[in-house]
Amino acid sequence: MAAYTIVLLRHGESCWNQDNRFCGWFDATLSGTGVEEAKRAGQALKDAGYEFDICYTSVLKRAIRTLWLVLEGIDQMWLPVHRTWRLNERHYGGLTGLNKAETAAKHGEAQVKIWRRSFDVPPPSMDENHDFYNNISKDRRYGDLPDQLPTCESLKDTIARALPFWNEEIVPQIKDGKRVLIVAHGNSLRGIIKHLEGMSEEAIMELDLPTGIPILYELDRNLRPVGSLQFLGDEEAVKKAMGAVAAQGKAKL
Amino acid sequence: MAAYTIVLLRHGESCWNQDNRFCGWFDATLSGTGVEEAKRAGQALKDAGYEFDICYTSVLKRAIRTLWLVLEGIDQMWLPVHRTWRLNERHYGGLTGLNKAETAAKHGEAQVKIWRRSFDVPPPSMDENHDFYNNISKDRRYGDLPDQLPTCESLKDTIARALPFWNEEIVPQIKDGKRVLIVAHGNSLRGIIKHLEGMSEEAIMELDLPTGIPILYELDRNLRPVGSLQFLGDEEAVKKAMGAVAAQGKAKL
Repeated sequence: MAAYTIVLLRHGESCWNQDNRFCGWFDATLSGTGVEEAKRAGQALKDAGYEFDICYTSVLKRAIRTLWLVLEGIDQMWLPVHRTWRLNERHYGGLTGLNKAETAAKHGEAQVKIWRRSFDVPPPSMDENHDFYNNISKDRRYGDLPDQLPTCESLKDTIARALPFWNEEIVPQIKDGKRVLIVAHGNSLRGIIKHLEGMSEEAIMELDLPTGIPILYELDRNLRPVGSLQFLGDEEAVKKAMGAVAAQGKAKL
Repeated sequence: MAAYTIVLLRHGESCWNQDNRFCGWFDATLSGTGVEEAKRAGQALKDAGYEFDICYTSVLKRAIRTLWLVLEGIDQMWLPVHRTWRLNERHYGGLTGLNKAETAAKHGEAQVKIWRRSFDVPPPSMDENHDFYNNISKDRRYGDLPDQLPTCESLKDTIARALPFWNEEIVPQIKDGKRVLIVAHGNSLRGIIKHLEGMSEEAIMELDLPTGIPILYELDRNLRPVGSLQFLGDEEAVKKAMGAVAAQGKAKL
């Protein structure tokens, strides 16, 4: 029997998604489409009468703004919001800023295939000569974590730093009866879903989450899913979003 | 010598300010003018190069949205934000929703004068028959504080519930070297300023803070002001805002 319900939401399209560039920790803004996606997510949650007690997001503005638009849509702007780097997108290291063609030209199709198919092979590190090194590695928002700051991450690495936050910060709130909303990124959310569902490495790599569609999980007292994840929104929007993410995924790690 | 700098900001104009109604704990939205004021405040802070470490606001959306617009303007959306009812506007009790003429008609000019001139005489309580009783007193955002929930407040009462938050939550952060931004309301900010400046009851009642103009305080190691408060923005905007608030104040408690 379901004891708790949580809602996960992947941020709407960013300006870098539009260009199909590896974004990762680069702090790209939501595109106009992304803003509309976030508003629709808020409307879907409003129409279904959702109320929350606490919200979590990353320290990246495409997730934060998505959350703000949802909070505005459901008229719950007063809710406490916790931001953490542990819910950030995967750090794409040296690939950050490259589009598909540039990545293939620089590293070769064979290497790109290896990265795309592997759970635990990280991309090259972002070194001091990278165009976005100062922009990301020297950003003061990460000033408190010099020893933990990644320079690149495999999906495994991303999950490994996201899950401690889930276990230590979010789970106690859920068990305390708080209704939790998490607005984050494709790969940090994959970490939570892999953990909840006990999914294999292969299975989680196959799962492409739609952007801007609220994902519901009903959990039992031991935080095991009761049934499968559900999407909130009209059927057409959900189908369309799933298809779009799958197509986009082909050009991505 | 200044050891710390803090910035206080009164939210921009709300839709109820436009109608000159007692708003208090009613959760009115920012007007179009209020949105523009908040954006200008963000621009002024950006132009002056301000960086913050932590932000505080109320649980009322006119303050929260003002903060959001500022964080967007200064590109610091990732900053931690703490919301608290203790920074809410003064609770105007039974006057909530009334404009100047309605207040005079209902309670008499003589009584209105007494309220306007007194530091510690509260307006009538908001009872269960009040139009906004359920909207405010039964709002779940206040569900955790049934014993503390006011039904009306004098300026003295407002200051008395704002200052514990200042002393217990904000002061330790300032002393820890955190650069603090507080976006709140005319009367909760009066409480902080009265405390900082050691102002008399009469003096704080005379002080009308401009909306949407960042207010800077430089503080010494004992959190005593070094010099007087300063406004951030071009001189004309500051003068105009001060004048507008003074005129509006005539129709207010």
